[in-house]
Amino acid sequence: MPKTRLEAFSDGVLAIILTIMVMEFHIPKGDQLSVLLPMLPVVGCYVLSFIYIGIYWNNHHHMLHAVKHVSGGVLWANLHLLFWLSLLPFVTGWMGENHFATWPTVLYGSVLLMCGVAYTILAKVLIRTEGPESLLARAVGRDRKGKVSIALYAVSLPLAFWNHWVALGIYGAVAAMWHIPDRRIERLFVEE
Amino acid sequence: MPKTRLEAFSDGVLAIILTIMVMEFHIPKGDQLSVLLPMLPVVGCYVLSFIYIGIYWNNHHHMLHAVKHVSGGVLWANLHLLFWLSLLPFVTGWMGENHFATWPTVLYGSVLLMCGVAYTILAKVLIRTEGPESLLARAVGRDRKGKVSIALYAVSLPLAFWNHWVALGIYGAVAAMWHIPDRRIERLFVEE
Amino acid sequence: MPKTRLEAFSDGVLAIILTIMVMEFHIPKGDQLSVLLPMLPVVGCYVLSFIYIGIYWNNHHHMLHAVKHVSGGVLWANLHLLFWLSLLPFVTGWMGENHFATWPTVLYGSVLLMCGVAYTILAKVLIRTEGPESLLARAVGRDRKGKVSIALYAVSLPLAFWNHWVALGIYGAVAAMWHIPDRRIERLFVEE
Amino acid sequence: MPKTRLEAFSDGVLAIILTIMVMEFHIPKGDQLSVLLPMLPVVGCYVLSFIYIGIYWNNHHHMLHAVKHVSGGVLWANLHLLFWLSLLPFVTGWMGENHFATWPTVLYGSVLLMCGVAYTILAKVLIRTEGPESLLARAVGRDRKGKVSIALYAVSLPLAFWNHWVALGIYGAVAAMWHIPDRRIERLFVEE
Repeated sequence: MPKTRLEAFSDGVLAIILTIMVMEFHIPKGDQLSVLLPMLPVVGCYVLSFIYIGIYWNNHHHMLHAVKHVSGGVLWANLHLLFWLSLLPFVTGWMGENHFATWPTVLYGSVLLMCGVAYTILAKVLIRTEGPESLLARAVGRDRKGKVSIALYAVSLPLAFWNHWVALGIYGAVAAMWHIPDRRIERLFVEE
Repeated sequence: MPKTRLEAFSDGVLAIILTIMVMEFHIPKGDQLSVLLPMLPVVGCYVLSFIYIGIYWNNHHHMLHAVKHVSGGVLWANLHLLFWLSLLPFVTGWMGENHFATWPTVLYGSVLLMCGVAYTILAKVLIRTEGPESLLARAVGRDRKGKVSIALYAVSLPLAFWNHWVALGIYGAVAAMWHIPDRRIERLFVEE
Repeated sequence: MPKTRLEAFSDGVLAIILTIMVMEFHIPKGDQLSVLLPMLPVVGCYVLSFIYIGIYWNNHHHMLHAVKHVSGGVLWANLHLLFWLSLLPFVTGWMGENHFATWPTVLYGSVLLMCGVAYTILAKVLIRTEGPESLLARAVGRDRKGKVSIALYAVSLPLAFWNHWVALGIYGAVAAMWHIPDRRIERLFVEE
Repeated sequence: MPKTRLEAFSDGVLAIILTIMVMEFHIPKGDQLSVLLPMLPVVGCYVLSFIYIGIYWNNHHHMLHAVKHVSGGVLWANLHLLFWLSLLPFVTGWMGENHFATWPTVLYGSVLLMCGVAYTILAKVLIRTEGPESLLARAVGRDRKGKVSIALYAVSLPLAFWNHWVALGIYGAVAAMWHIPDRRIERLFVEE
């Protein structure tokens, strides 16, 4: 099975997820700058989620670039990842409209956690298809970055009940950590 | 006529159908976990429809992969399938907001039935274009799985008036049956 | 300039136009079949517009298939066509919610007229780029079908004030006339 | 890294941004032509934003056509541009519903300014990747048009407080200036 349609479909879904988040920006009544003030938390959440979708698209792009063929299992592992990502617009809106209250922040973190888990599963399924000596397997290696992210999300959830700003700080830190596209893969390509 | 644009257009429509279902998740008032409880049926319906769209995309992907050229008739048979699939977000929302009441469940099943019929028509049109000796014709064969699905949907509709959980169980069972991508086609590719 | 991105962008816009029309189907209150009755005109309009978008996508597909290169003028003629098509969801919704009242029917026909004009302009710009001896120029020829459609739309507008069902009948008739993909182009490809 | 997925993803996001602006056209109550009158400013804003998205798509298309490879930095510079463009539907709706009042007009211009800045950054990152002797570097040259646009937007913002029609006139003039696709790049391609 060639991978082009998998890439095209994923790109389409990610592009739509990215863009429909803007539709949570309800146009306010009034033409003064002050009517936009209550929207600031919503916009802040949008920026965070936009960066997260960008990171996933970026790394998805890199990971599939290192892959030659996709099996039926890969298609479903990919859909599983898209499922959790598709919940981001809702949890982003809920967190923004409630000004980072505890439960919305926890739910947001839980969806990020599930996205991280789904991404790890996708990587594992891809490596199983490609083989342990493949370019991808060597590039991902022991996947320390992925494991650290999942651990950080898991830690952030109970912390959110104590202080949700700490949880939000962790979400931001994980994003920053991933912001740099997967240099492991990029390096390998240059070497060959 | 090459098939690339048909694939790209179908991918686009399916990606949008998949994603706009999330827009039925109206952000609730309040920041407690309890305000999300009434949304659970909607989320459940979303999961079922997400899997169905995934199955259709998956099998569409496999079927067109086995095809070389598309005729004008194929374009319309494909649009016919997309039409019925495009009704899924509406019936998903109606079923979810009414907690699987009888009529919404029947309508949901009817749309699934029509999707199944439209998929069968598309397969028939494709096989007519490709010829009875083609890779696709041999792979689809007597299409027992397609016929069984349509029969199950048809049976589920009257059953829904008696007990709608039975109908929902049938929808889930058909999804499970199709979950495994069409191994018939995959096997043939490997053999050649 | 290669034509792939023009095709991809047009496919994307058309796929979204097609799909967001479903979002006008507001989920009704109540779980009885009767609550869907008032939606029937909206669904009827959706079917008509779905077929129209299908026709445009189909013919756009055929026309660009016969083209080798696109110039800056083609990009803008194409955007102009997409602009008028993008108004279809709004006029479809307005006509459906007002049960085919006179003014909504006239506005719907006006948008169809402008789509027809924009398509003719795109064809002319493409033929100018390709040259009078090109495959496309010979296939489109004197473009009788395009001219007849525009004339029929123009006639339907005043008729709508007398009896809007006549206007709607004309819209349906033009759709039926175009339903068959442009056999002129298909024939030429087979001949070569 | 090949550039195809970057183009596909950008096309998808731009196509969605273009199309969801139509969703701000709320279907009015009533079937008389007069109920559409209050919508005219919204439609006017839509036309302006549609042309702007068209220009960005067009120039993005030309610029990436002149590029061979994309780095991680390019992916993020591109996402940064898409971020500002994604705000256009919101500011378009706010400006339209408030009939070009001062603050909405200023915000609209600010988003245009940031889009211009983001486009310039993307061009710089691309040229750094391609090298100073590349086709792209020679084509963009000193990028006078880009600098003039950014200056005009910056000037228009304070002017909007004095007379917002002047600001709107400037937005229109910049659009007209860019309407012609980047002939610098097109010329170079023909020469080679």
